[in-house]
Amino acid sequence: MMPEDSAELRALYRGFAENHMNPLWTQTGDLMPMHPKPRAVPHVWKWSVLLPLAEASGRLVPVGRGGERRAIGLANPGLGGKAYVSPTLWAAVQYLGPRETAPEHRHSQNAFRFVVEGEGVWTVVNGDPVRMSRGDLLLTPGWNFHGHHNDRDAPMAWIDGLDIPFSQQMDVGFFEFGADKVTDYATPNFSRGERLWANPGLRPLSQLQDTVSSPLAAFRWEHTDRALTEQLLLEDEGHLATVAPGHAAVRYVNPTTGGDVMPTIRCEFHRLREGTQTEARREVGSTVFQVFEGRGAVVLDGTRHAVDKGDIFVAPSWCQWSLEAETQFDLFRFSDAPIMERLQFMRSQVGG
Amino acid sequence: MMPEDSAELRALYRGFAENHMNPLWTQTGDLMPMHPKPRAVPHVWKWSVLLPLAEASGRLVPVGRGGERRAIGLANPGLGGKAYVSPTLWAAVQYLGPRETAPEHRHSQNAFRFVVEGEGVWTVVNGDPVRMSRGDLLLTPGWNFHGHHNDRDAPMAWIDGLDIPFSQQMDVGFFEFGADKVTDYATPNFSRGERLWANPGLRPLSQLQDTVSSPLAAFRWEHTDRALTEQLLLEDEGHLATVAPGHAAVRYVNPTTGGDVMPTIRCEFHRLREGTQTEARREVGSTVFQVFEGRGAVVLDGTRHAVDKGDIFVAPSWCQWSLEAETQFDLFRFSDAPIMERLQFMRSQVGG
Amino acid sequence: MMPEDSAELRALYRGFAENHMNPLWTQTGDLMPMHPKPRAVPHVWKWSVLLPLAEASGRLVPVGRGGERRAIGLANPGLGGKAYVSPTLWAAVQYLGPRETAPEHRHSQNAFRFVVEGEGVWTVVNGDPVRMSRGDLLLTPGWNFHGHHNDRDAPMAWIDGLDIPFSQQMDVGFFEFGADKVTDYATPNFSRGERLWANPGLRPLSQLQDTVSSPLAAFRWEHTDRALTEQLLLEDEGHLATVAPGHAAVRYVNPTTGGDVMPTIRCEFHRLREGTQTEARREVGSTVFQVFEGRGAVVLDGTRHAVDKGDIFVAPSWCQWSLEAETQFDLFRFSDAPIMERLQFMRSQVGG
Amino acid sequence: MMPEDSAELRALYRGFAENHMNPLWTQTGDLMPMHPKPRAVPHVWKWSVLLPLAEASGRLVPVGRGGERRAIGLANPGLGGKAYVSPTLWAAVQYLGPRETAPEHRHSQNAFRFVVEGEGVWTVVNGDPVRMSRGDLLLTPGWNFHGHHNDRDAPMAWIDGLDIPFSQQMDVGFFEFGADKVTDYATPNFSRGERLWANPGLRPLSQLQDTVSSPLAAFRWEHTDRALTEQLLLEDEGHLATVAPGHAAVRYVNPTTGGDVMPTIRCEFHRLREGTQTEARREVGSTVFQVFEGRGAVVLDGTRHAVDKGDIFVAPSWCQWSLEAETQFDLFRFSDAPIMERLQFMRSQVGG
Repeated sequence: MMPEDSAELRALYRGFAENHMNPLWTQTGDLMPMHPKPRAVPHVWKWSVLLPLAEASGRLVPVGRGGERRAIGLANPGLGGKAYVSPTLWAAVQYLGPRETAPEHRHSQNAFRFVVEGEGVWTVVNGDPVRMSRGDLLLTPGWNFHGHHNDRDAPMAWIDGLDIPFSQQMDVGFFEFGADKVTDYATPNFSRGERLWANPGLRPLSQLQDTVSSPLAAFRWEHTDRALTEQLLLEDEGHLATVAPGHAAVRYVNPTTGGDVMPTIRCEFHRLREGTQTEARREVGSTVFQVFEGRGAVVLDGTRHAVDKGDIFVAPSWCQWSLEAETQFDLFRFSDAPIMERLQFMRSQVGG
Repeated sequence: MMPEDSAELRALYRGFAENHMNPLWTQTGDLMPMHPKPRAVPHVWKWSVLLPLAEASGRLVPVGRGGERRAIGLANPGLGGKAYVSPTLWAAVQYLGPRETAPEHRHSQNAFRFVVEGEGVWTVVNGDPVRMSRGDLLLTPGWNFHGHHNDRDAPMAWIDGLDIPFSQQMDVGFFEFGADKVTDYATPNFSRGERLWANPGLRPLSQLQDTVSSPLAAFRWEHTDRALTEQLLLEDEGHLATVAPGHAAVRYVNPTTGGDVMPTIRCEFHRLREGTQTEARREVGSTVFQVFEGRGAVVLDGTRHAVDKGDIFVAPSWCQWSLEAETQFDLFRFSDAPIMERLQFMRSQVGG
Repeated sequence: MMPEDSAELRALYRGFAENHMNPLWTQTGDLMPMHPKPRAVPHVWKWSVLLPLAEASGRLVPVGRGGERRAIGLANPGLGGKAYVSPTLWAAVQYLGPRETAPEHRHSQNAFRFVVEGEGVWTVVNGDPVRMSRGDLLLTPGWNFHGHHNDRDAPMAWIDGLDIPFSQQMDVGFFEFGADKVTDYATPNFSRGERLWANPGLRPLSQLQDTVSSPLAAFRWEHTDRALTEQLLLEDEGHLATVAPGHAAVRYVNPTTGGDVMPTIRCEFHRLREGTQTEARREVGSTVFQVFEGRGAVVLDGTRHAVDKGDIFVAPSWCQWSLEAETQFDLFRFSDAPIMERLQFMRSQVGG
Repeated sequence: MMPEDSAELRALYRGFAENHMNPLWTQTGDLMPMHPKPRAVPHVWKWSVLLPLAEASGRLVPVGRGGERRAIGLANPGLGGKAYVSPTLWAAVQYLGPRETAPEHRHSQNAFRFVVEGEGVWTVVNGDPVRMSRGDLLLTPGWNFHGHHNDRDAPMAWIDGLDIPFSQQMDVGFFEFGADKVTDYATPNFSRGERLWANPGLRPLSQLQDTVSSPLAAFRWEHTDRALTEQLLLEDEGHLATVAPGHAAVRYVNPTTGGDVMPTIRCEFHRLREGTQTEARREVGSTVFQVFEGRGAVVLDGTRHAVDKGDIFVAPSWCQWSLEAETQFDLFRFSDAPIMERLQFMRSQVGG
């Protein structure tokens, strides 16, 4: 329906521009593509590159009020240098030197930390000190005060996941500074949240109100590993337990509802037996994986990338991905699927 | 509005009777009382009486097809000898001799077992063998096949709770016979359901569909005891964790929803510190307690009853009850609260 | 598993009786039948019998405080003379003479009125006068104050439906007297509830909280008739609109949720074209129909009953029923389906 | 926590850039502001400018496949010329000449049309012709085929609202072409959806499955106007019905749930009595108003704008807005509030 060029038409377009209008017919394909065509691209970040850069930051950049965190965001190459791993998600390596403290603050943005190696840091969430150790998932849902401190003489690095890009583009974020120190330097093995909530199938009678995000803020590696191990054993015994042959997986959930741990971020852990390959899959929304242990590959829109421990990769919306396990292959995964599901935009396609 | 007696009135009443009609004005107070006036009464059954009678049944009554279970129902004294502990609930002592099997069947009625002492029996629920040990709660939600077998040379007794009176009066029940033997005589420490589901905050990715009843069918004493212990420790440390000072409590929940384990029955466990007394309380719906450990008293509509290990008592609808702990006092509780809440009839009154 | 008779066994059974116990093995089939075996029976009440008896009550029985309502309950012949049309439901003919008032009260029990003929009465629900006219459904959800008054010189009769049998057997009911007169004798055409809520797809911004029962308390015949007429026209035009060929039907719903109008009672209206016959159907739970207009038959567990205007019939749980239309055949229906669905006991079977 | 400049630091930053990383500490305030600081700005578009430009398009730009619609998007001056009225919402003037057809297509994006004046166009949604007349709200929820045709000899303009900016930035959109002509050129007064669903409190028994978006796709001015009129009359009579004195308002809802008409877009209609002024208000998320009738003003972040019939204005996230009515003042409103509420980011502030 392209109109012929004319002086009148040019005047019309000028009128649009002057009056802050923009016609649909000149931009339909871009505004409304046949399927999601993200500017974000699939990408792999190697841990062997990320960690040394984080260590260098530890030497050169102090941590404290203002910058708030020594966190280095992964910037999707398609998104113009912004620290967005995808249009919705932030993924960063955070680094805390020996005995350092990252000051307290709170924000609307939902956050988690996942620990690929190390220990010795406690994150203090609304006054409750939460130990961070290898394989643990730790939550900081929106508007909870939180700071971190390293109780040891060795530095520690981990990854942070947040919904910063979503909140920045959609204008939903509030922020508040808290104490410059964390409010409690105790270093208990288990947070109060875990002591109340990490009892399977048991709900404290004092906590009957459902909460938007999980009141259980620490998911320990011991439980995750056992759950995955049992799924594979059950599969060996001939019972339905895995998502696909050789592929065990759990979703981290809010025990008050059985649903996702936070309103915008889904967290999962996947384990593939050696030699397993997943079916190729596309989904609306973006997802990030970190290899926790083992060696394998990810195929992203047809390109195969070898990955091992610590490597992080992103699959943007409708990007096709599959995993291949050279050894037993353990991966932590997070995504924006709760956004897509709650707003009814989720679609997926399995296979060819 | 009582009419004067007359030949015409008597003819009218005869007309009603002949045509299956019954006027409201002669019966309003009974049909619609100012508050619930149950025919069921508060009552205490002593374990020291129940257990010997169960043992005598073990000698005199075989277990098998037809009678199905060697279960002796508690008959509320106000309900005319029927084996109803309340208008909604069934509570029974079940007894299984050495090496005996109770055959498989299934029914619409929701059921659980709670073990006040002993071990050695496995209940096989839809083919999954579930160990029964002291302090455990075991579920058999409606329409799951189940049978029991005793793997030991000693007998075992436990209590059963079901919604039989509700289902019988409301005409909702279906029943089907299964195998005369249980389908699997294996005696694993943990059922497949536990191996999949008893991982706090972790949901198998193969099980994302919410279920009406809990897919976790065994709630182990070890977890219950730890949850209660931690609540009291947290209270000692100055944190909100208990329902009232000195009163720890958990609700058993369906991990797919965070709600009650079955659509009609709520299960809880309560622990009072020595010397603790609960506030007097009334609720719509009926509730049953069994003392698990310790010594104390229950006050039911003003009458104090000393109770200890194994004793069972019922508080009918709107009956006032409170508990007093002479020692540390542990009680298992079940009720029909999900019925009252789902149909919006729940009310409660705390204090005087 | 019947034990042999013996002195010991008799002593055991005596022990049970003395201690308020009752063994399962002597009563399994009755307690847990293979399918619902209600004591309630299918039954038809003829309007030509009901109405004259109601009119006679109008002459002989005053209306007022104490008896509260001149309502004559239908007593299911299987339920021992109690004014229960089924184990859950109450159905009654209520009669109000010229210029009479039925005083205000409120109760936990949910109630509705349906008007098969007549006009001139206003029911005042929480102070809001609601006109009652032929074909209208009027709600009085639990704990709303309500009274009725007849503004005309002619008497009026209608049917009441409540969950009295459920509430009486399950001990959930509270009751409170209100004013002896109704609080407002105004006779507006439309209640305030209708003025706020009877606008299709439009929700008052001042009323965003969902309510347990419908805030719209009057469903007018004009709308019901139009909805059914349109369904049959759409069917004629080749579109999916009816539940089955020749069978139009609507459910009355709570506009804040789209669900049933009250937590325990479902209300529907069905229209069959002349000559239409419905498939035979069984359902868990009981249902009551009143013929509103036309002539036809109901087959209840194999027995055919001719019915016409005003006739009322009940199908208890799992009773098979089907309808046949001799003329266009309009029926109002209510049932306890919300109870069965919310407690997950619903099952149905269509056809042979 | 700004590090001192050094060669090493510069090397570190180079390392970040080369490896697609971007540190948090250089950008915290922008990424995580103290409250939403949208790039979008408050803005008013005058109907007296919009309509002539739309009319000129009608003369100069054909409508048809490719461009799909003769729609002119409002481009928020803060968003770089993109046709985004806000980061989530699209608002456009659409124009259809005499006897023209806009071809059929479908897309994930949710859409509605609101008619400030005119008549004669039918939008055909999934084959169901829906009349468009002054004051009507017409829905095209995601993935419904739709086209429009003008059945008259006069042109017609209206506004379109969609979630295009959200779907484009979040990469969720799919698109499919349909027929070049609309599938049904019939011009009925009422769509089939209305005939099934526009009966207050009555749900077709053939449509018991809840739907993501409203199955009622046309909300007629007659009903909206009556609802608002009644609210003001009820206020006059002393009853709670309006949101604030002199301020009547309705939300358009999905009759299957009572919730918003579509998963991402909320639609409302507001009427202020002459002289009424609303309290100043901020909310997370953006909102657009169109004046339907009357004359008044909007104050957007402290700046007063006089507006009258047809004028459109946008308040971005956390922008303070209030309305003032010079005459009776009728406004159509839409917003992205369902996104903010479903993702738990909603906050609002009333007053100062």
